Amino acid sequence: MTTKSAVTDHPIHPLLEARWSPRAFAPTPVAPEQLLSLLEAARWSASGGNVQPWSFLVVPRDDEAAFAQLLGTLVEGNRIWAQHAPLLVLTVAQQQREPGTPNPYALYDLGQAVANLTVQATALGLSVHQLAGFDPEQARGAFAIPENHTPFTVLVIGAQGDPATLPEPLYARELAERTRKPLGSFVFGGAWGQPVSLLEGVTQEG
Amino acid sequence: MTTKSAVTDHPIHPLLEARWSPRAFAPTPVAPEQLLSLLEAARWSASGGNVQPWSFLVVPRDDEAAFAQLLGTLVEGNRIWAQHAPLLVLTVAQQQREPGTPNPYALYDLGQAVANLTVQATALGLSVHQLAGFDPEQARGAFAIPENHTPFTVLVIGAQGDPATLPEPLYARELAERTRKPLGSFVFGGAWGQPVSLLEGVTQEG
Repeated sequence: MTTKSAVTDHPIHPLLEARWSPRAFAPTPVAPEQLLSLLEAARWSASGGNVQPWSFLVVPRDDEAAFAQLLGTLVEGNRIWAQHAPLLVLTVAQQQREPGTPNPYALYDLGQAVANLTVQATALGLSVHQLAGFDPEQARGAFAIPENHTPFTVLVIGAQGDPATLPEPLYARELAERTRKPLGSFVFGGAWGQPVSLLEGVTQEG
Repeated sequence: MTTKSAVTDHPIHPLLEARWSPRAFAPTPVAPEQLLSLLEAARWSASGGNVQPWSFLVVPRDDEAAFAQLLGTLVEGNRIWAQHAPLLVLTVAQQQREPGTPNPYALYDLGQAVANLTVQATALGLSVHQLAGFDPEQARGAFAIPENHTPFTVLVIGAQGDPATLPEPLYARELAERTRKPLGSFVFGGAWGQPVSLLEGVTQEG
């Protein structure tokens, strides 16, 4: 297993440090009790007004017809590696509480639910790679998603595999260093662009 | 401290189980190294194309002018309890990569970053209560947020306080049972509305 723990400037919890998005997945199925824990972690996420505006379409590899359908919505560059993973999950946001009543927090809350699912995955030794590179309208048609719901991302889930199974340039990307903007570039104090005093030493480091 | 751990149907990690959104906060300041870890946890979150479309305006209670300004953007029902917390953070999404180029994943990714910040907070014995009940345009004006960025939520952060300090009906809400939809109502199999076989026993329980 390739570990690419975050190289942090400040300590964070090991589950957050260890999380990253691999492309090489081992074929080992995600066990039913693992999948239930992933979904339960999403279930207990926070949401605006506790409306829980998320749904998940669960497509394990051995559900061959559905797996092929969801895989078929992915752009070629994602399909090439995602096809080997044991589990795909289509995430869906309820952006309309009812027709004509938008919920502007639906995508934000879906993101939170997926982040919590991902923490749970990490705790179980699994990885999650989120994809935006797929055709949501094709997915809507394939899985009969109602009009007031929005297919938003596809989660590729499984245990990490051997990077050597990936073709270039994916192999190189799998081993590349992880990068982030420095804290001082997106954390501000009394006004936008104004440094927080406690980050003053940090901005230079970043 | 009031603990309202989730009553889960399936095991989840203790940090996810323990997280909830209190309204009673102790006045104890969030230490600088704790705040740095919260922000660092957000920093290492996943995002579409790794664009990291989030910013955070950090307003501790002892920054009196800024604290009063941000507090002043909150609706009365939130101000009544949030005023006692030691730390407010305004979250901001970059919904335009540049003017005219929208990033449709900005809110989803901001949600993920906040969820990770919240996991880190829980690990440090702190709680986060997210608010949508505030005036984003007033916050934009008060803190000079640029046009291509969107003030989205306010995070109220600190150690849990004594629920008895809350007026009714907030006191009763602080002690009320936490609830979620059953898994079977938002997790589907081969198509929308179709149960996943592994959840068939679960749906009844919920």
